[in-house]
Amino acid sequence: MTQTTQQVDQLCINSIRSISIDAIEQANSGHPGLPLGAAPMAYVLWQRHLRFDPNRPEWPNRDRFVLSAGHGSMLLYALLHFYGFGLERGDLENFRQWQSKTPGHPELGWTPGVEATTGPLGQGTANSVGMALAERWLAARFNRPGHAIIDHHSYALVSDGDLMEGIAYEAASLAAQWKLGKLIWLYDANDVSLDGPLSLSFDRENVAARFEAQGWHVQRVEDGDHDLEALDAAIAAARAESTMPSLVVVKTTIGFGSPNKAGTAAAHGSPLGKEEAAKTKRELGWDVDEKFQAPRAARDRFLSKGSSGKEDREAWDAKLKSYGKTHPELAEDLRRALRGVLPTDWRSGLPIFESGEKMATRVAGGKVLQYVAARIPWLMGGDADLSCSTKTAMESEESQSALAPGGRNLHFGVREHAMAAIANGMAYHGGVRPYVSTFFCFSDYMRPAVRLAALAELPVIYVWTHDSVAVGEDGPTHQPIEHLMSLRAMPHLHVYRPGDANETAAAWACAMERMDGPSALVLSRQNLPVLGVPPAISAEGVRRGAYVALDADAAQALVIATGSELHVAIEAAGRLKEAGIGVRVVSMPCWERFAQQDKDYRDSVLPPSMRCRVSIEAGATLGWERWLVGEGLAVGIDRFGASAPGDEVLQRLGIHAEAVVDAVRRQLD
Amino acid sequence: MTQTTQQVDQLCINSIRSISIDAIEQANSGHPGLPLGAAPMAYVLWQRHLRFDPNRPEWPNRDRFVLSAGHGSMLLYALLHFYGFGLERGDLENFRQWQSKTPGHPELGWTPGVEATTGPLGQGTANSVGMALAERWLAARFNRPGHAIIDHHSYALVSDGDLMEGIAYEAASLAAQWKLGKLIWLYDANDVSLDGPLSLSFDRENVAARFEAQGWHVQRVEDGDHDLEALDAAIAAARAESTMPSLVVVKTTIGFGSPNKAGTAAAHGSPLGKEEAAKTKRELGWDVDEKFQAPRAARDRFLSKGSSGKEDREAWDAKLKSYGKTHPELAEDLRRALRGVLPTDWRSGLPIFESGEKMATRVAGGKVLQYVAARIPWLMGGDADLSCSTKTAMESEESQSALAPGGRNLHFGVREHAMAAIANGMAYHGGVRPYVSTFFCFSDYMRPAVRLAALAELPVIYVWTHDSVAVGEDGPTHQPIEHLMSLRAMPHLHVYRPGDANETAAAWACAMERMDGPSALVLSRQNLPVLGVPPAISAEGVRRGAYVALDADAAQALVIATGSELHVAIEAAGRLKEAGIGVRVVSMPCWERFAQQDKDYRDSVLPPSMRCRVSIEAGATLGWERWLVGEGLAVGIDRFGASAPGDEVLQRLGIHAEAVVDAVRRQLD
Repeated sequence: MTQTTQQVDQLCINSIRSISIDAIEQANSGHPGLPLGAAPMAYVLWQRHLRFDPNRPEWPNRDRFVLSAGHGSMLLYALLHFYGFGLERGDLENFRQWQSKTPGHPELGWTPGVEATTGPLGQGTANSVGMALAERWLAARFNRPGHAIIDHHSYALVSDGDLMEGIAYEAASLAAQWKLGKLIWLYDANDVSLDGPLSLSFDRENVAARFEAQGWHVQRVEDGDHDLEALDAAIAAARAESTMPSLVVVKTTIGFGSPNKAGTAAAHGSPLGKEEAAKTKRELGWDVDEKFQAPRAARDRFLSKGSSGKEDREAWDAKLKSYGKTHPELAEDLRRALRGVLPTDWRSGLPIFESGEKMATRVAGGKVLQYVAARIPWLMGGDADLSCSTKTAMESEESQSALAPGGRNLHFGVREHAMAAIANGMAYHGGVRPYVSTFFCFSDYMRPAVRLAALAELPVIYVWTHDSVAVGEDGPTHQPIEHLMSLRAMPHLHVYRPGDANETAAAWACAMERMDGPSALVLSRQNLPVLGVPPAISAEGVRRGAYVALDADAAQALVIATGSELHVAIEAAGRLKEAGIGVRVVSMPCWERFAQQDKDYRDSVLPPSMRCRVSIEAGATLGWERWLVGEGLAVGIDRFGASAPGDEVLQRLGIHAEAVVDAVRRQLD
Repeated sequence: MTQTTQQVDQLCINSIRSISIDAIEQANSGHPGLPLGAAPMAYVLWQRHLRFDPNRPEWPNRDRFVLSAGHGSMLLYALLHFYGFGLERGDLENFRQWQSKTPGHPELGWTPGVEATTGPLGQGTANSVGMALAERWLAARFNRPGHAIIDHHSYALVSDGDLMEGIAYEAASLAAQWKLGKLIWLYDANDVSLDGPLSLSFDRENVAARFEAQGWHVQRVEDGDHDLEALDAAIAAARAESTMPSLVVVKTTIGFGSPNKAGTAAAHGSPLGKEEAAKTKRELGWDVDEKFQAPRAARDRFLSKGSSGKEDREAWDAKLKSYGKTHPELAEDLRRALRGVLPTDWRSGLPIFESGEKMATRVAGGKVLQYVAARIPWLMGGDADLSCSTKTAMESEESQSALAPGGRNLHFGVREHAMAAIANGMAYHGGVRPYVSTFFCFSDYMRPAVRLAALAELPVIYVWTHDSVAVGEDGPTHQPIEHLMSLRAMPHLHVYRPGDANETAAAWACAMERMDGPSALVLSRQNLPVLGVPPAISAEGVRRGAYVALDADAAQALVIATGSELHVAIEAAGRLKEAGIGVRVVSMPCWERFAQQDKDYRDSVLPPSMRCRVSIEAGATLGWERWLVGEGLAVGIDRFGASAPGDEVLQRLGIHAEAVVDAVRRQLD
C-alpha cells in the first residue's frame, strides 16, 4: 500500500515523538513535553527548509539551528538520528548516561550536528543572533557578484521560558537593531511552563505585539499540532522577509498525544511514566512494545533529505572552487577566517611600551587591540555602551549596522548579558573571532553566558576594565571586589590581570592564541607605571601565568601581586631592601596558566622553602591561601568599596606599600 | 517684584540644574546629563505629586521614588537638599568624597530619603516593582473599609540604559502580569547614551509600543524640557489609571542648557568643565560665581512642599490611630510587619527531623518553610517557575495576582534576575520579608541583584536547590561547581549549605533572624540521611557556622565537610576508625558565620595543632586552603560536571568516602 505524502509526513512526526518517548522512558529522566509538541514545526523546518549535509555537519554554509529550549534535547537527538548524523539507536538508548552522545541538554562537541550548548533558558536566542550576525558579516566581507559563498539562515526554536528571560528581549532588540533578516525564531507557544499554566506568570503580555514593537516580522500559526502547510508557509515567508528578523508564533499542545498529560505541566519535565507512555504511543498509532522504531516510509523520507543536503553541499563546494579561481586572495582569506588559526608570526608587531611611562592597562589594551585588529581581519567585537571608557573600539573600522554589514565594531547598547551570549553565537558559527567589553563589575550581568563559553570551550575574549576600587568616585556599585576570585573559581576560564602595559600586550596575545576556551582581560582604569621588566621576560611570564618580576639575593620574603598592585609590591620591596630585607616579587597575572605549569617551574617561582609570603590584590582575599603556605598574609579587600577618589579609596582600604611592608615584618619578627 | 507661579517653577528647575552642575564641577566627577535633562519631570513629580515628609523620611505610607538611572545621583541629592531632608550645602560640596552623604551613586543608608541603592542599570526598575507589590499586598492585608492605611504610589525614573537591560523587560512583564496599578515609571527618553546617539544601539525599537504590548498604560510627553503642564497631566493620568502600571515617555534633552554639549554624549558621564559649566549656568540665568545657590523664591517653593508633606503625614498618623482603635489586632500586626522583628519565641515550633530518615535538604527546607510561613505572616516569596522542584511554595497560601492581591506565593516565571531585584524592592519597602528561589546554577542569572542586596544590607533570603553535580541527568549546564565559592567571595552575603534536614531548619532560622543582610540556603536535590547529631547541637553549630559533628579520642585527622558531603565525611571517618585512625568531622555550613566567631571557638573546632586535614565539598576547591593549613587536601570538583545519574556523577568525579580515606592516609603516611 502506498502512502500519501501527507501520511508519510505524519509518520515522520510521530516517529520523532515516539522515539523521544522511548529514550526518556529508558533514561527515566527527561522532558517529553517539548518533543511531543514541537515535533511538527521541527519536522517541517528540517525536512523542507533547513540546509545541512549530515555527512559533513560542519559544512560552513549550512543553516544553523539552535534548540534554545535545550531541555527538549530528545527532539534534537531524534532529528539527528533520523537524518543520519551518525547518532545511532545505541546512543538514544544511552540518553542522559555517562559520556553518551546524548547528554541531558545539548552540548557542543558531544554530538554531531549540535550547534550550541543550551539549557539555561534564553541563551540560545542570543546565540542565534550571534550566528546570524557572523553570517552577515562574512557575506558582506567575502561575497562577490555571482559568488554568494556565505548565504544561509540561522534558526532558533524558542519556548515560553526563553522568551520570559531578559536576555531574549535584549537579543531580540539587537537583532532588530542590526536588521538581521536571515534570523528566524520558531516560538513553541504552548501556554504551559514547568510550574503550571502561563496564567501564573506570562499571559498578560502580547508576545507577537512585543516583537512587532521591537521591529520584527511576526507571523502566527494557529494550529501548530496539525497544520503543516501553515508551518511551511510561515517559514517560507520568514525566509522571504530579508530585511528584518522573523518570529513565527506557533500555537502547540505541550505533550501532544499523551491522553492524560497533554496540555498540562505534568508533561513538561518528567517522563510520562510507563503506562502513560504506552497510551501515548498507542494514540500515535505506534506499537507499544517496539522501542526506538520508525516505519520504513518515514526513515526513507528522512534519508532523502540527507541526499539532497549532500547535493547542496557539493554544489557549494563547486561554487567555492569557482570563487577561488576568480578571487584567489579572498578565498584564501576566507579559509583562514573559517579555520581561525593565527599567522605564525602574528605576534611580531605587538606594541612594546617604554618603561617609566604611565599608562592605564585599559589604555594599553586599546593600543594592543589596534594592532590585533589590523593583523586579524576576522576579529569582531564591541562593548555595552562603554567603549569610550573601555577603549575597545577598533579605530579604523566601521560600526556594524544594516548599512555597514561589514562593520567590525559592535555596539551592544546596555545589554551585557545578550552581548556575552551573542559572542558565544559568533564563536559557535565560526569565521569570526569575538571579543566583548564592559566594566569589570558588570561581568556579573554576563555570567551565565560566560559560564557557557567556558563549558562549550569557546574562544571568546572578555575585556573587563575598571577592575578595582580604584574606579573611585563611582563607588561600590561600580567597584569589583569578589569578581576576580569568583571568576577564577569557574572551570576552564582563563583570567588575566596584567600588571603593566607590556603584560597587557602579552595577555592579549595569549588570549588570542587560546582557541579552546574563553579568556578574560581584567584591566585598570587608573594609570600604572610601565615596569622595567624586559618585555620578552614579562611576555614569557604571562604565558606561564606567573614569574619573578624582581628578585633579591638571599630573599627573605616573597610578595605575590597581580594587576595594579604589582608596582605597589615593587615599591614595598624597595622599602624593605632599604631596611635590609631582601624580597622577591612575583607577578601572577593568570592563576590558571600558572597552575598548569609543571612543578619544577612552579617551585622555581615560588620556592617551597620560602615561607614568608605576602599577597597583594585589590579584591577579596578568599583563595589567596592557595599560594600563601603556612602563615602567609593576604593584603586585600574583604568589604565593599566606597565612593571617593580612587587613590584615596586604595589608601583607606589598605592597598598600599606600607601594608605589604607591615605584613612582611609581622612574619619575620 | 512678584514672580508668577510659572517663573518660580522655572527657578526651581534651574536651581536643581545649577546646584547639580556646581557639585559635579567641585568633585570633578559625575554625570551632569541626566540632572540637567530630567530636572523638569523630577520637579513636577516631587512638587505636585510625590507624597513625603522630609522630617520623617521613613514614614511608612510615603510614596516611593527610585532613581533607577543612579548615575544621575546629583538630581536626587539636589531634590533632597531643596526639600529639606537634611542634606546640607556641605554635603553637596562633598559630592563623591569619602564617607560623605552624597556618594557617586545613591546608596541606601547613607542619605536620608534615598530609597534604593542604584547605579547598575536596570535594577531600579525591578526594585520599584517590588515596592509596588509590597504596597499592594500590605493594602490587601491591612486596609479595611474606611481605613486605607496603606495607600501610596511607587515611582521610578528610568533611562534609555535601564530600558535596554533585560531585567527591565522582565520587571515590566511582571508588573503587568500582577497589574500593579500604582506603579509609575517616568522614562527620560533623551536619545543619547554614554557612547553616543541611540542610533548606534537603540533606535529601532518602539518603546511605547513595547510597553503597550506588555499591557502597560503608556503616555508620551513631547517636550519634557519645557512643558510642565503636560508632565503634570501625564503623571496625574498615570495616578488615575489604577488597573495597570503606567509608563510616561518623556522626550528630553540630555545636558539641557549646556550650549555646546546639550543633546550629545559629551554631557552624559563627565563634568561639563569649568568653561562650559559657566556658560550653562549663564544660560540658565544663574550667577556663574555663586556656587550652590538658589533664589529665595525657589527655596520657599520647595519648603512649602515639605510643610504640606508634614500635614499629609500627620493626617496619616491620626488615621493610624483611629485604625488602631477600630482594628487593634490588625494594627498590632501591621506594626510588627513594618518593624519586621520576629517574635522572641518564634523558633519554638521549628520542625525536628528524626535521625535515620532520608530526606533531601530541599524537601526539609520546604517543610521548614511551612512553619516559618505560618509563624511570620509577612513572609512572601516564590520562585522562577520551579517551585515544584525547589519546594518553596507556601502550601496554604494563595498565588499573588490582581484577583488575589493578598497572595503570598509569587510566581516570577522564568525571570530570575528581576525576581532577585524585585525581592530587593520588597525589602526596601518594608512590611514584608522576601525569599526567592531557583536552581543553584541559575543564581548566576540573579547575581547583580544579589550583590546589591549584600551592599544595601537587605534581609533577602535565597533558596537555591539542586546544589551540585548530584543534580545528575540534566548535566553540566545545570550542575553548580564554582557557585559556592564565588558567592562566599561576595562581601556580606551569608551562604549556608546545610548537611542534613536539621541543619536546614537551623539555617532557615538563622537566615530569618539576620536582618542586616542577605542569606542563601543552598540545598540538595538528592536524599541525605538525617544525622544523629542532636538537633540542639546542630542548631547551635549552624549559628556559629561550623561545629564538631563527630569526634574521636585522640583524633589524628580532621575532615571538614558541607552539605551533602557531610554524611560522606562521616562514612569515611567510620572506615578510618575501623583502620584505627581517629577522625574528627567538622560540619561547616556557613563560612561567614564561622569566620565571625572568636579565635577560641574557631580553635576549639579546628585546633591549630591538628595538621592532618581534609575537606570534602562537591564544588570548586579554590578557597578551601583557608581551613586546610599546611599540606591539607581538598576533595572537590575542579571541572564541569556531566550528564548521568547523580550518584554515578558523584562517584566518577571522586566525591566519595574512599577519596577522603585516601587523602587522610596520604597525609598520615
